[in-house]
Amino acid sequence: MQTEKQVLAIQSHVVHGYVGNKSATLPLQIRGWDVDCLNAVQFSNHTGYGHVEGYKLSGSQIKNIYEGLRAQEFEYQALLTGYLPSAEAVEAVFEVGTQMKSTNKDMIWLLDPVMGDEGRLYVKEDVIPVYKKILKSGLVTLITPNHFEVEVLTGIQLNSKENVIKALDFMHREYNIEHIVISSVPHATDNTILLTIGSTINEKPFVIRQSKIQSYFTGTGDLFAALLLDSVHRYGLSNLAIATTRAISIVSKTLKRTYEFGLSKNVPGCKMADKSMKFYELRLVQCIDIFSQIEHTDVKYEEYA
Amino acid sequence: MQTEKQVLAIQSHVVHGYVGNKSATLPLQIRGWDVDCLNAVQFSNHTGYGHVEGYKLSGSQIKNIYEGLRAQEFEYQALLTGYLPSAEAVEAVFEVGTQMKSTNKDMIWLLDPVMGDEGRLYVKEDVIPVYKKILKSGLVTLITPNHFEVEVLTGIQLNSKENVIKALDFMHREYNIEHIVISSVPHATDNTILLTIGSTINEKPFVIRQSKIQSYFTGTGDLFAALLLDSVHRYGLSNLAIATTRAISIVSKTLKRTYEFGLSKNVPGCKMADKSMKFYELRLVQCIDIFSQIEHTDVKYEEYA
Repeated sequence: MQTEKQVLAIQSHVVHGYVGNKSATLPLQIRGWDVDCLNAVQFSNHTGYGHVEGYKLSGSQIKNIYEGLRAQEFEYQALLTGYLPSAEAVEAVFEVGTQMKSTNKDMIWLLDPVMGDEGRLYVKEDVIPVYKKILKSGLVTLITPNHFEVEVLTGIQLNSKENVIKALDFMHREYNIEHIVISSVPHATDNTILLTIGSTINEKPFVIRQSKIQSYFTGTGDLFAALLLDSVHRYGLSNLAIATTRAISIVSKTLKRTYEFGLSKNVPGCKMADKSMKFYELRLVQCIDIFSQIEHTDVKYEEYA
Repeated sequence: MQTEKQVLAIQSHVVHGYVGNKSATLPLQIRGWDVDCLNAVQFSNHTGYGHVEGYKLSGSQIKNIYEGLRAQEFEYQALLTGYLPSAEAVEAVFEVGTQMKSTNKDMIWLLDPVMGDEGRLYVKEDVIPVYKKILKSGLVTLITPNHFEVEVLTGIQLNSKENVIKALDFMHREYNIEHIVISSVPHATDNTILLTIGSTINEKPFVIRQSKIQSYFTGTGDLFAALLLDSVHRYGLSNLAIATTRAISIVSKTLKRTYEFGLSKNVPGCKMADKSMKFYELRLVQCIDIFSQIEHTDVKYEEYA
């Protein structure tokens, strides 16, 4: 009958807006996944608004809820993990991932090591060694750091092509990660362009170039990670470049529609901690038609060399 | 550009499966709503499995998160409230609803007074007087009790048509509720049939008759409440009978597809606290095509007299 695709997604929940699990869930559902959301936090809205109310789960609360799932023997083809609120929450997710891989070694674990952006950490420093430990375990299939997170994980500044390749190599070898996609890498000389750089161990890296929209969006990385998970499940991990073009294509169309909506409200782009942010929440519900377009893309990749 | 429809939905969240907000959200999103989910509990799965892990929010936690939303001045056309884990959580939701109606008197508040089913309360008794107080406030637009909840709220046994009409009248007059839809009313003599009975104050009640599927489903009431909310928003509260047929039609198709899936797994119906339950979780992701069918229905209503 219907294909059964189940993913356990552990990251944040916001009541209003689209980041974390609120950003990941609908697109995955439209693409046929039952999404089991384990919400590691519940916030009223994303932190970009400046003011937030809400609650975080402790590491043991996360583990308890997972034990509830395990008792019922639900089966998962994938684990998606994103923002986690503390080092002990990351430790708990390590235990969850270890357990899940031990019952299904083919399970895809996409780990988005959400730690910060644009030169700024938004987690505590003690989270970093725990992510390093997880990455070294060999249990994670695919990671999607942004360029800042790569710098944090590798200690290598991504200020040249040579260094990007060095960092990819470091993550493949030292961290035992087979597949890597680095999002939002600034172009060295052209600030209207953003790069996505991907790499599978022992293969040549690839790059996707895209025009940057001059506004501020949140939840984009979470949307990308979710779509990439679907896409690698669909096209196979051996086709990471093709899978990445499909995910990028959908993210890009979603951002364009979101941006047009903001403009239609006479809000010319948005800034952090500003009332304008609510007009630039990802327009996911209004992009359902986009999420259901599976094959079509005009995004191209090329060898990164 | 796109229609903006925003609903604040306050009820339970389960990581796996479809009850509460997990049952309400996807169908509403497919029908164009941005659904702000304030999850009053986070459980691993619904309680029918017999074993559950998870956490409940206190009343003050619910109010704090709402204060976060209020600070950003998000606007809502509707409030949907379902299962709440304690009397103080119900009190908190009363404050939320009061505040929201004070800023938007046209807001639809659909309250599903989730207290129990089939003769059994699954909330503490102290919840009952709080629901009665809310219903008497005149702030609630529409309620969707099942027949047991009507008996709890009115003290009238729904064992005859006369008594059903007496109970509807009691709820309109004593509780100041303009619109009522009672779900899952057993037929007096034919246990293959379920009735849905609706009523708008000062108008004749209506009834919808449906064949009962011989299995056990959870989250059906939550799905119905969400679809009815969309439906009354679409057709207008003055067309409650038509709106109800549209919602029932979609619920019915969803149950049929869910049932067929269970059968395809060689599980002939499911029982409470049994491993078979996971095969009878509502197949919402596999019913997206059904949720997008707006106008079409073959469900008929007739006068209940």
